[in-house]
Amino acid sequence: MPRLVYVTRRERFSAAHRLFNPVWDDAKNFETFGKCANPNWHGHNYDLFITVKGFPLPDTGFCIDLKYLSDLIEKKVISQLDHKNLNLDVDFMSGVMTSTENIAIAIWNQLADTIASKGCALHCVKLWETENNMVEYFGEE
Amino acid sequence: MPRLVYVTRRERFSAAHRLFNPVWDDAKNFETFGKCANPNWHGHNYDLFITVKGFPLPDTGFCIDLKYLSDLIEKKVISQLDHKNLNLDVDFMSGVMTSTENIAIAIWNQLADTIASKGCALHCVKLWETENNMVEYFGEE
Amino acid sequence: MPRLVYVTRRERFSAAHRLFNPVWDDAKNFETFGKCANPNWHGHNYDLFITVKGFPLPDTGFCIDLKYLSDLIEKKVISQLDHKNLNLDVDFMSGVMTSTENIAIAIWNQLADTIASKGCALHCVKLWETENNMVEYFGEE
Amino acid sequence: MPRLVYVTRRERFSAAHRLFNPVWDDAKNFETFGKCANPNWHGHNYDLFITVKGFPLPDTGFCIDLKYLSDLIEKKVISQLDHKNLNLDVDFMSGVMTSTENIAIAIWNQLADTIASKGCALHCVKLWETENNMVEYFGEE
Amino acid sequence: MPRLVYVTRRERFSAAHRLFNPVWDDAKNFETFGKCANPNWHGHNYDLFITVKGFPLPDTGFCIDLKYLSDLIEKKVISQLDHKNLNLDVDFMSGVMTSTENIAIAIWNQLADTIASKGCALHCVKLWETENNMVEYFGEE
Amino acid sequence: MPRLVYVTRRERFSAAHRLFNPVWDDAKNFETFGKCANPNWHGHNYDLFITVKGFPLPDTGFCIDLKYLSDLIEKKVISQLDHKNLNLDVDFMSGVMTSTENIAIAIWNQLADTIASKGCALHCVKLWETENNMVEYFGEE
Repeated sequence: MPRLVYVTRRERFSAAHRLFNPVWDDAKNFETFGKCANPNWHGHNYDLFITVKGFPLPDTGFCIDLKYLSDLIEKKVISQLDHKNLNLDVDFMSGVMTSTENIAIAIWNQLADTIASKGCALHCVKLWETENNMVEYFGEE
Repeated sequence: MPRLVYVTRRERFSAAHRLFNPVWDDAKNFETFGKCANPNWHGHNYDLFITVKGFPLPDTGFCIDLKYLSDLIEKKVISQLDHKNLNLDVDFMSGVMTSTENIAIAIWNQLADTIASKGCALHCVKLWETENNMVEYFGEE
Repeated sequence: MPRLVYVTRRERFSAAHRLFNPVWDDAKNFETFGKCANPNWHGHNYDLFITVKGFPLPDTGFCIDLKYLSDLIEKKVISQLDHKNLNLDVDFMSGVMTSTENIAIAIWNQLADTIASKGCALHCVKLWETENNMVEYFGEE
Repeated sequence: MPRLVYVTRRERFSAAHRLFNPVWDDAKNFETFGKCANPNWHGHNYDLFITVKGFPLPDTGFCIDLKYLSDLIEKKVISQLDHKNLNLDVDFMSGVMTSTENIAIAIWNQLADTIASKGCALHCVKLWETENNMVEYFGEE
Repeated sequence: MPRLVYVTRRERFSAAHRLFNPVWDDAKNFETFGKCANPNWHGHNYDLFITVKGFPLPDTGFCIDLKYLSDLIEKKVISQLDHKNLNLDVDFMSGVMTSTENIAIAIWNQLADTIASKGCALHCVKLWETENNMVEYFGEE
Repeated sequence: MPRLVYVTRRERFSAAHRLFNPVWDDAKNFETFGKCANPNWHGHNYDLFITVKGFPLPDTGFCIDLKYLSDLIEKKVISQLDHKNLNLDVDFMSGVMTSTENIAIAIWNQLADTIASKGCALHCVKLWETENNMVEYFGEE
């Protein structure tokens, strides 16, 4: 009987960002976001874990080829976020607060359909902003 | 459509404890708990991960403000466990074996209601006792 | 009311292996598996996390004694994989591609029944092949 | 006989920066610094290790009180770098390329005299920019 | 020409302790040591790195056999510190403040002569008390 | 006055090997090397840290360009060791026991001259075989 496994690939990117709601004035932004609202930006080394679920194929023992998965994440996510400004440089983040929550959801949207077309399913996007702060998104609405 | 995300905050505490069942004699305690029964105590650096689930708010992109969550964990948990003796100094552990399982459950009880009152839900308390031993509690009975 | 907790024990092993489908010729193996098909083998430090779920016993506060669990993993898994060739030396991997997926499933099969006989349930086998590649198996078919 | 020990305190900061030589045109900057020259900045979680050497005092067993050392690093370094733009917001980096080398040297200059005035000596500033890139400065000229 | 190499073995121990100078009253102890003076103790997972320098032997390629070194550290250090109270249970710490500085020096004294008798030299004792606090001792007076 | 800094780049490789002295019989090899003598090999994820010392250049703030250093390590070291058998596949390890000591020395020899030709000096080769075993070589004879 085929077994359902969960395969995770880690990738990394370094980016600048700022938490700032343009509808609010500076005082309200600083009150809400503290030092994260610094107008000259700050940044992070993000640690990204992409988990795919599926059945290992008999020929390879793979649920999904991790070289393929890594290349896909590079093309759809890392090449657009790494050494970029998340507020200014990223098409798929435009108009969205660059909270870790929203970055994780946006990364899900970048990957889910292509992975589904390969006979697997995207299971989780896990994103560490710092060693103390992390968000997971499982596609739940 | 709102997306359900899981946000995790890491905190740390260092504490002394001892595994010891007062109903048993020393021989039975050492047979059951080994060196963990040392009468003069031993201790650990505990690594604590608190996961909250909820919907990011449009104004902030936050499910829960991590500064608030960190302060809450500090007040309800860390300030009572850090640099303390878990068997002697902690009101909410009194009368309970200080196994990692029971510490995790007790931390859940300290946090769940307040987090629920903020429109989120406590999802998981994850507690590392050493790099090799870890417990998770999801509120299941 | 008893609480359901998840207890995890980490163990480690170092092993050689090769990804290679004997039905295919060398060209197809290299095309599929790249450098992982190297005929003289390569190897990894594997990081293994075994998660058991159960109810803490009132006498000990333990869901499962981690010394017992560690000894069981040592006997059934580590002693058979550590400093071994996963393709040649391991009875319970014989005839199976040594992908991380399949190693995780095989480890599950080595442990599930014994853990069930102790009044707990094996919940997850999590296996890191490198810091970037990881597989989880939850017993799902 | 007094023993000479080396005490290290870790601190962290998250900052934005850009590698860019204003004397050069954009083409030369991109050729030299690659994606690190992105005009809209990028950023990192920096991991900072400050090592002080000295003789433990008989009364305390301390070479230097780590609470004091942590507060000093907070005041002189972290409060000025954390959630800031290293090119724009930091007085003691003004006019200097924000390479990890130069940040480490600047941090040394911020701390060395005060530590010396406490009867110890600053021994090393160690700064990780990413998990793969690190610089150490020992005050050597 | 023989090459001088530095070989490091990591070991771990978990212990309780308290910072407390018996000559002082409680007020002065709390003023000096803060929460580390808690009379009911606290504790840590200590991470210990022992570095030995020497010339690799042609027959083995080893400077020192790491199995031998690990057994030596177990016998002389870990078995006496692990799951113990550093203030009460450890002969070689008796009468000494249990600061990380002093523990590192005491570990050096436990190991240096035996290692020297094997044709190598103890080079460094490195001891992490928490992920943020670390001490190194190189035998310097 | 120019400042002397130490810049470190981390790289990784996964390889198979075996500790075995061909002059000895199997019994003596197993007695000396234990499970590391397994005739069917075993393997590791090696973590490699290359440290270069030099003076930051005013134009770039770099002691050595880390992209250049990474490419050099890839070409001279990683491409020859990664997913290989250290005993069979590596020209520069031929005839040498594949202890961590000897691998570190061999990596030094692969890199030192090229780095010296760039106006810097190779300072240290640091090689982790497992999380518990590590070797450093500083070019000392």
